Amino acid sequence: MEENSNQCAAESAAIPLNMEGESNDGEERDPESISLSQPLLRRNRTLSSSPLAIVGAKVSYIESLDYEINENDLFKHDWRSRSKVQVLQYIFLKWILAFLVGLLTGIIATLINLAVENIAGYKLLAAVSFIQKERYLMGFIHLAGANLLLTTFASILCVCFAPTAAGPGIPEIKAYLNGVDTPNMFGATTMIVKIIGSIGAVSAGLDLGKEGPLVHIGSCIASLLGQGGPDNHRIKWRWLRYFNNDRDRRDLITCGAASGVCAAFRAPVGGVLFAFEEVATWWRSALLWRTFFSTAIVVVVLRTFIEICNSGGCGLFGKGGLIMFDVSTVTVTYHMMDIIPVVVIGIIGGVLGSLYNFFLHKILRLYNLINQKGKVHKLLLSLSVSLFTSACLYGLPFLVECTPCDSSLAESVCPTNEGSGNFKQFNCPDGHYNDLATLLLATNDDAVRNIFSTTTSTEYHPISLLIFFALYCILGLFTFGIAVPTGLFLPIILMGSAYGRMLGIAMKSYTSIDQGLFAVLGAASLMAGSMRMTVSLCVIFLELTNNLLLLPITMIVLLIAKTVGDSFNPSIYEIILHLKGLPFLDAHPEPWMRNLTVGELADAKLPVVTLRGIEKVERIVEVLRNTTHNGFPVIDDGVVPPVGLAVGATEVHGLILRAHLVHVLKKKWFQREKRRTEEWEVREKFTWVELAEREGKIEEVAVTSEEMEMYVDLHPLTNTTPYTVMESMSVAKAMVLFRQLGLRHLLIVPKYVAAGVPPVVGILTRQDLIAYNILNAFPHLTKATSREKGN
Amino acid sequence: MEENSNQCAAESAAIPLNMEGESNDGEERDPESISLSQPLLRRNRTLSSSPLAIVGAKVSYIESLDYEINENDLFKHDWRSRSKVQVLQYIFLKWILAFLVGLLTGIIATLINLAVENIAGYKLLAAVSFIQKERYLMGFIHLAGANLLLTTFASILCVCFAPTAAGPGIPEIKAYLNGVDTPNMFGATTMIVKIIGSIGAVSAGLDLGKEGPLVHIGSCIASLLGQGGPDNHRIKWRWLRYFNNDRDRRDLITCGAASGVCAAFRAPVGGVLFAFEEVATWWRSALLWRTFFSTAIVVVVLRTFIEICNSGGCGLFGKGGLIMFDVSTVTVTYHMMDIIPVVVIGIIGGVLGSLYNFFLHKILRLYNLINQKGKVHKLLLSLSVSLFTSACLYGLPFLVECTPCDSSLAESVCPTNEGSGNFKQFNCPDGHYNDLATLLLATNDDAVRNIFSTTTSTEYHPISLLIFFALYCILGLFTFGIAVPTGLFLPIILMGSAYGRMLGIAMKSYTSIDQGLFAVLGAASLMAGSMRMTVSLCVIFLELTNNLLLLPITMIVLLIAKTVGDSFNPSIYEIILHLKGLPFLDAHPEPWMRNLTVGELADAKLPVVTLRGIEKVERIVEVLRNTTHNGFPVIDDGVVPPVGLAVGATEVHGLILRAHLVHVLKKKWFQREKRRTEEWEVREKFTWVELAEREGKIEEVAVTSEEMEMYVDLHPLTNTTPYTVMESMSVAKAMVLFRQLGLRHLLIVPKYVAAGVPPVVGILTRQDLIAYNILNAFPHLTKATSREKGN
Repeated sequence: MEENSNQCAAESAAIPLNMEGESNDGEERDPESISLSQPLLRRNRTLSSSPLAIVGAKVSYIESLDYEINENDLFKHDWRSRSKVQVLQYIFLKWILAFLVGLLTGIIATLINLAVENIAGYKLLAAVSFIQKERYLMGFIHLAGANLLLTTFASILCVCFAPTAAGPGIPEIKAYLNGVDTPNMFGATTMIVKIIGSIGAVSAGLDLGKEGPLVHIGSCIASLLGQGGPDNHRIKWRWLRYFNNDRDRRDLITCGAASGVCAAFRAPVGGVLFAFEEVATWWRSALLWRTFFSTAIVVVVLRTFIEICNSGGCGLFGKGGLIMFDVSTVTVTYHMMDIIPVVVIGIIGGVLGSLYNFFLHKILRLYNLINQKGKVHKLLLSLSVSLFTSACLYGLPFLVECTPCDSSLAESVCPTNEGSGNFKQFNCPDGHYNDLATLLLATNDDAVRNIFSTTTSTEYHPISLLIFFALYCILGLFTFGIAVPTGLFLPIILMGSAYGRMLGIAMKSYTSIDQGLFAVLGAASLMAGSMRMTVSLCVIFLELTNNLLLLPITMIVLLIAKTVGDSFNPSIYEIILHLKGLPFLDAHPEPWMRNLTVGELADAKLPVVTLRGIEKVERIVEVLRNTTHNGFPVIDDGVVPPVGLAVGATEVHGLILRAHLVHVLKKKWFQREKRRTEEWEVREKFTWVELAEREGKIEEVAVTSEEMEMYVDLHPLTNTTPYTVMESMSVAKAMVLFRQLGLRHLLIVPKYVAAGVPPVVGILTRQDLIAYNILNAFPHLTKATSREKGN
Repeated sequence: MEENSNQCAAESAAIPLNMEGESNDGEERDPESISLSQPLLRRNRTLSSSPLAIVGAKVSYIESLDYEINENDLFKHDWRSRSKVQVLQYIFLKWILAFLVGLLTGIIATLINLAVENIAGYKLLAAVSFIQKERYLMGFIHLAGANLLLTTFASILCVCFAPTAAGPGIPEIKAYLNGVDTPNMFGATTMIVKIIGSIGAVSAGLDLGKEGPLVHIGSCIASLLGQGGPDNHRIKWRWLRYFNNDRDRRDLITCGAASGVCAAFRAPVGGVLFAFEEVATWWRSALLWRTFFSTAIVVVVLRTFIEICNSGGCGLFGKGGLIMFDVSTVTVTYHMMDIIPVVVIGIIGGVLGSLYNFFLHKILRLYNLINQKGKVHKLLLSLSVSLFTSACLYGLPFLVECTPCDSSLAESVCPTNEGSGNFKQFNCPDGHYNDLATLLLATNDDAVRNIFSTTTSTEYHPISLLIFFALYCILGLFTFGIAVPTGLFLPIILMGSAYGRMLGIAMKSYTSIDQGLFAVLGAASLMAGSMRMTVSLCVIFLELTNNLLLLPITMIVLLIAKTVGDSFNPSIYEIILHLKGLPFLDAHPEPWMRNLTVGELADAKLPVVTLRGIEKVERIVEVLRNTTHNGFPVIDDGVVPPVGLAVGATEVHGLILRAHLVHVLKKKWFQREKRRTEEWEVREKFTWVELAEREGKIEEVAVTSEEMEMYVDLHPLTNTTPYTVMESMSVAKAMVLFRQLGLRHLLIVPKYVAAGVPPVVGILTRQDLIAYNILNAFPHLTKATSREKGN
């Protein structure tokens, strides 16, 4: 595990590196040709691209996914011969996998919850018992020690075994569903570390949630199920072969992400919508239905466990039903005048959210510098954050005064020393409670529950809320980047609810809205201000709080907060994606992309490498060894022309994938003479199940010099229906096509028809369509862009 | 208004007709060429298509929409010169329009509600007062007379002024958002008739809802706002020119549809999801946000009116809050064993839903035959349905026995004679109520409320429920097709809730689920069984009933009912779309489309009509007069070749639209010599605002014989970036491209490169990609399809 890669290179993904990646299709390493074409094209750099990104704090190679259906002869034959039974097997398996994703995500989420509630609960109870005996130092040592231990445990796991398990994982899932594969992201080790690490980190009282990690865990489960187990021990079940393609994996991982959100918030509809609005790039109504099925299963599992735990067999876990932060007991009454506080919450939430994004960006850059220095530095960073957190959580409640219990509440409610109760006694005399301890000396879930508590308008002092808010702003910024599984949802909810409740106190005399609801609205506004979701957040909050009458207000708050936030900076996930250097294709092309044609883009790249329909082995080996491209256009020269055409036409036969060429070389499917093969010949040698495997490497292939002189008929293995654009197509429209159809390669065909015109003038990949890379090769566009902005 | 067009022709959209429509681009009327190419291609018919469909019980021309950005010189120049202020104007206007759509939809929905509740309420009160005086015949005459009057009113409006206002309108909106424009669908007359007709029809006690019509009304509002008023009195506001394109209208109508659902069910999130899942074909996350804004405005408007009405100024309207059918008072308790009744409800709902679809299809075909006979027949049909409904609603309650009031209920609750109350007294002695009258002698909304009533397990006799269910099955089937604005939601909810409640009574001893909830689940299952939605229905039911704990059960019921229903027939809207002959492009290509290339499809059509870059006026006039195509490829012959090319290359310059050619002829932008124009010349003559208008007809153009000999430079008006496919592309993949990108024309380019090859070998339109049309031209594929199915 090298930690010393250049972080800056990965951050700015287009700075030329000394290694060329898979995505540079259509380029050859000939620096001469670059300098030759320069003066003609008013540019000083070629369109180059880097296949590197930061994956789990480590710079790694990334690969593009291919959602296009590879219609070659073998596929077509298989597809024609696929019996009805096989089609049914496939459909059945799709639903079984969706079922299993839901089932396992639900079970794992419950287990995590159980573990966290018990570990954190006993830890807090022990600390409280010292406090009751007024042995304050021992209490601190106990609490801080336990927290340090748990953090060390989580951090060592992440640092040593699965660096990709650190962080929320949602940006990488987003990238995966956009078509960018990051290595080791969905493996078994990552999943196990994420589960255990998440338990440790959340129990350690750090300011992070298990929500983001649960989304990642759900996706890992989906990915592992789809490929039949961990990389080394895959089940070779025949049915699973249908799933060995990027499309079905993508759909399954979408299900997994939705299940994860559902398990985190017990919000089935919210989970589906989160996957749709935030995570997924491609969506079909069939997928809507399948993700919905998965989340329904998750809810049934959660519901079953709740029923089991309600009988008391789960330790400190088990109180509470399906709704996490129920505020339905309070009746929402509001009038036209209440629009003012609602608008105020929305605006402040938007501003705070974008500020949070801004500062988090800065701190993540700083942390990247620290993380580069090695494992020990990473570990020390985590431990110091943990120590700071413990000190604040334990020490700050001593600063505030005790509050006498409200006599209108029942004796048993106040004060309490239980793990999850409201009105914590802490260091106060009987009949009094410490309001800051109520918020700080609890698990994060309980803290949210306490701050959302309704019809308790005098529970919290403004000062305590201010301290709480300030503390969680600091912790929220400094905790996110450490090397443990971290989620963003809960920290933001905590921050937002604190400021919402403060606002509620400030506006007490103007409005009849309950302060608990103010806290809910504050949390929603900060979420929208930072994450910029609308419908999914709205439904998640509805399902979290079970107060339908709050819905109209929540909608307005979310809309305002998102609008305000958007006017400052992009959403937090987009910031992280960019920081990691992942080549994410945006939904909208940049305006200046209309002024550039794909032909110009192709000219800026090195000439495209094509193969002939019947190609010499030597040439294939040479091409595979000397380029890193993943697809090669297959051209037939001097074909027998159709009626009415001149002799000597060239024909675009299609596109062949690198993996298939490697298969051909490995299986030595060579022939002495230059002839086209019959369909049965290729079917004898290859099955489409083999061709779906994409792991072969050219370095593993040995070809004798005699074989080098032989020929290969590439026709049956060529995808005869690649998508194409004419060279006069604008980059903007080509990008829309590329993204909408989920392509990996896009052929550029000439707009001229004449003898001697090359039938394929270029090939575009994801990296070529990333705005940053294009601007690097065409610097004059940057000027145009900035001029436009200056208008 | 001709009613005698051939309905059969429209039903089977591909039967060759004696008129050729706009969509037959690339075909010329030369029967010779058809017969010549026949033997070569193993087909006995050319790929022909009909531009006709049933729109509002009338056969009309339909037109395709064009969502592609027409990148010609004029557009590019305008786009480059568009200042920041103009961009802001456009964004501001987009949001203002979304706001207005929400505002107006909310206001109109409230007004409709107000009118219906008052008209129906006073009508029912009058009937009840006769019954109390035991003057039963007078009561019937009163009720039936009022109903007949209201039905006549609604029906005459629909028949005489706006036939497109009859029915729900949702299938046509669905088609519009798929890219099919139907005439008079979104006009001012249609909207007004729909509003007034809907009030009349719903007040008349017919078995129909105002929900579907509200969706249509919302879309009409959106469309009218987008074009600046009714067709004849458009506002010429400069800002509105940005909205004169199909893309922005599409987005706005999506907002309108979502607002309509929201206003109908007071379900903002459900509205957005309904628009997404059921209505829209294209969706972007920006649109999600905008529709969400519209529905938020709708809810605020509804909430305001409720507040105003609660003070009592709205007549019989005004009781009740934002939640229509609140069942949140009952706590949902369920255990693992309750899964059995849930599964049973789901299965029965699926079966009943698909049966309903099946029978409705038959009856709509029958009604079409009646409707063809003329206006009087349509009117008589409506009146007989109205009379039958009145007789049943009034007569059937006399058949059942009176039930004594439950002594546990308060005196004031039972019995009641109020319009909206539960436990109607009707013909019963004091202290007794007639349970069937409770359901039948109420508005449909109140009937749903009464049948959903919770903790009243003994309220309804199974016999009464059975009568109710049977009656509403019959009414639901026979009412939908009559010539008034009809919605499908409420009839299905009524049917479903009746059978759900019956099932609840049958399973009373096995489960602890309340019977009111059984009614809710029954309604949900039948909706899913007939309409086949999942997430949106789930959210709509959640927002209708405000019982979050019911959500997991609802999800399972919906999933089962949809699965069962899908195994029998398509959803009700798809059936209606097909019945109307609207060329709807499905999301998934048919399997056999992989075996066909677009080249073969192009061969089955007549040769493509191309124009030269600098074309003679005579040729343009001839082409426009003799074809009905809407787009023509522009080809340049013998261009000055780029370096390295042979002399005499042909170049595909792009695609020019018919409307633009007509503009050229109208403005007489001719020149004597054959030369390319400068950019300023075209900008002097045309503005892009003019070019956005698409209403010119070739018949209106007069060209002198001298002008006929002149030339036109088509280059600056040509869209230089049309999407293309190679002729070897499979139809399946071409269809995915066509639908995903919302195209109107797709150029087919050759796969051969040689001198003499035509640079464009064909052009595909929506009609060419409809499975039915292809199968008509390639009958051997039908055999392959059926053989596959038989496997």
